[in-house]
Amino acid sequence: MSLAAAARVGDAVDAIDTPALVIDLDALERNIERMAAYAREHGLRLRPHAKTHKCAEIARRQIAAGAVGVCVQKLSEAQALAEAGIDDIFVSNQIVDEAKLAGLAALAGRIKLAIAVDSALGVDRLAAALKASGSTLDVFVEVDVGHGRCGVAPTAAVALAHQVVSHGLRFAGLQAYHGRAQHLRTPAERESAIRHAVGLARAAQAGVTSAGITCPLVTGAGTGTFVLEAASGLYGEIQPGSYVFMDRDYADNHAAPQAPAFKHALFVKSQVMSAGSSHVVIDAGHKSHAIDSGLPRVLGRELEFINGGDEHGILRRHGGAPLPALGETVWLIPGHCDPTVNLHWHYIAVRGGLAAGRVEAVWPIEARGCIR
Amino acid sequence: MSLAAAARVGDAVDAIDTPALVIDLDALERNIERMAAYAREHGLRLRPHAKTHKCAEIARRQIAAGAVGVCVQKLSEAQALAEAGIDDIFVSNQIVDEAKLAGLAALAGRIKLAIAVDSALGVDRLAAALKASGSTLDVFVEVDVGHGRCGVAPTAAVALAHQVVSHGLRFAGLQAYHGRAQHLRTPAERESAIRHAVGLARAAQAGVTSAGITCPLVTGAGTGTFVLEAASGLYGEIQPGSYVFMDRDYADNHAAPQAPAFKHALFVKSQVMSAGSSHVVIDAGHKSHAIDSGLPRVLGRELEFINGGDEHGILRRHGGAPLPALGETVWLIPGHCDPTVNLHWHYIAVRGGLAAGRVEAVWPIEARGCIR
Repeated sequence: MSLAAAARVGDAVDAIDTPALVIDLDALERNIERMAAYAREHGLRLRPHAKTHKCAEIARRQIAAGAVGVCVQKLSEAQALAEAGIDDIFVSNQIVDEAKLAGLAALAGRIKLAIAVDSALGVDRLAAALKASGSTLDVFVEVDVGHGRCGVAPTAAVALAHQVVSHGLRFAGLQAYHGRAQHLRTPAERESAIRHAVGLARAAQAGVTSAGITCPLVTGAGTGTFVLEAASGLYGEIQPGSYVFMDRDYADNHAAPQAPAFKHALFVKSQVMSAGSSHVVIDAGHKSHAIDSGLPRVLGRELEFINGGDEHGILRRHGGAPLPALGETVWLIPGHCDPTVNLHWHYIAVRGGLAAGRVEAVWPIEARGCIR
Repeated sequence: MSLAAAARVGDAVDAIDTPALVIDLDALERNIERMAAYAREHGLRLRPHAKTHKCAEIARRQIAAGAVGVCVQKLSEAQALAEAGIDDIFVSNQIVDEAKLAGLAALAGRIKLAIAVDSALGVDRLAAALKASGSTLDVFVEVDVGHGRCGVAPTAAVALAHQVVSHGLRFAGLQAYHGRAQHLRTPAERESAIRHAVGLARAAQAGVTSAGITCPLVTGAGTGTFVLEAASGLYGEIQPGSYVFMDRDYADNHAAPQAPAFKHALFVKSQVMSAGSSHVVIDAGHKSHAIDSGLPRVLGRELEFINGGDEHGILRRHGGAPLPALGETVWLIPGHCDPTVNLHWHYIAVRGGLAAGRVEAVWPIEARGCIR
């Protein structure tokens, strides 16, 4: 129940079957090194979010460059990456289901593991599962720093931290991630959102500390805002994910002057399968790329991508250049990298550029579809 | 590289892990039987579109109820379903890539296969691939009947039909599907679109026939419009897909009085993982359900679903009922069934209703991710 890879190692780029998810290795390596260098230079721990790439090989490369481990959102993602050899994982999300907590506790006996909590019930159940398995892990209390999704108010963090400690669990600090802030378009909007987030995280930390509980770490931040969390002096760890690939949505952010630049490293290779007089149709639709953050952009050509449904993309002229011919390759920059990756079985990793490079590696996407 | 199924046969519905893709078997069987009866009563061949369900077991049930075979959109879907025992498949789409055409020709040696064409290059390459493999298949010329995607104008259909015949291939008729018409909200809008489509298909058929080429079949139609194509007297075969599951988007269509009614048979089971004072968060986001046709609807509860990102859904009160509690089950009706199915590995098929039923079967989604 797995589609064969779209190419083999050594194939020319032209020979990659379509649609296929292709990595420009030079860009990927540059992105990995650039973020690692930033964390090093700023004295921050780097724990990239693997929900973006879902791939053990990329996690290994991030760790080799200096990351302390990775984040994931789901237990099954942690299980898949642990199976593939990744041994330091933070599930930066809540789990309250008892069967899942038993699985988490079992995994905690095999790798260095951490989890976020935001409810008394969750902490009680976590403690019971860990007691039953005789394992342990790091527990972060999640604070809602403006996203309005998971996490507790700063004033409620101290009670949860108390509860964690009273169960004999390791209180590891605060999870303080503002997801929506990542995609605010202007530096001023992002700066305002993160100033607010830092204030809330600082209040939570002060509450915990003044209750006599040591707060070892505040962790959070994403590709759109990490320079702001870094500048706060509060965060000891950052969790960017998308920097490794970038996508159309992140490229649409107006960059802050102090932020390091990352390059597009993830593409969908497609080909023209039908040609009309005023449009052509490519073989990639939204079963090949996610459109939750908008449609993909066509790489390097004056073409407008129009939604053609699940299996098709419609391209119209967007400038003076002619339409591509039947069979011609068209490269797409996905709107949103994370859910696009989740649609594919493999990465085809290319060295030497998309125009004339060769396939250097084929990597399985081990945690693809791991939604539980 | 496959997530374990979310439940085992015999489990109570309560025991199904979340998020999971769940079928209400009673509703599914009713939908399958109702469409089969409609086709029977109207003297139409039924060839349901398997791009919707991607599952050999559901295809087998459709065929057992009277369908002549299934449609798919991609060669790899056809290969996956053929591997699982389905032996009559129409790839209702274009293929111009030579490596794919070699695969298609090889498959044509093993099962009854058909393909659509809309270019001279495509026909030439198809003929060459079939000649090389010594196999044969049915060839439909696709006419653009209003969607504005693939297919040729009616006047161009005759030249392609000629070319098909002159290559010694079997010209099987016309593919005439209007995708966008399916989701026009009012019966009047759909009626107008399909009247236009039928006119174009009839013109193409007349052109082909008056050129001395027999046109054995006009095939097309979907869940939103098939009663209109049926009433035309032109179509001999219908290709509805979504009727088997239905989804929120199809339910939002205003039904035509003469159309048989289908029931929601596909659901995402989720659970509350975080609870705030004014909202709760469930463990299903758009890695669990596609949002290209809008957000899912919450089944049977006064709750508004708000986009919570890839792994989360946010629920707010939408009426007087209280918010669900931490750990409580929430059932979602996906916005669009086809790409939602494509996100999952298995169907959990439940008998006896979602409230108190049991798992009767677990079906693999064999063609999941088959985008090539």
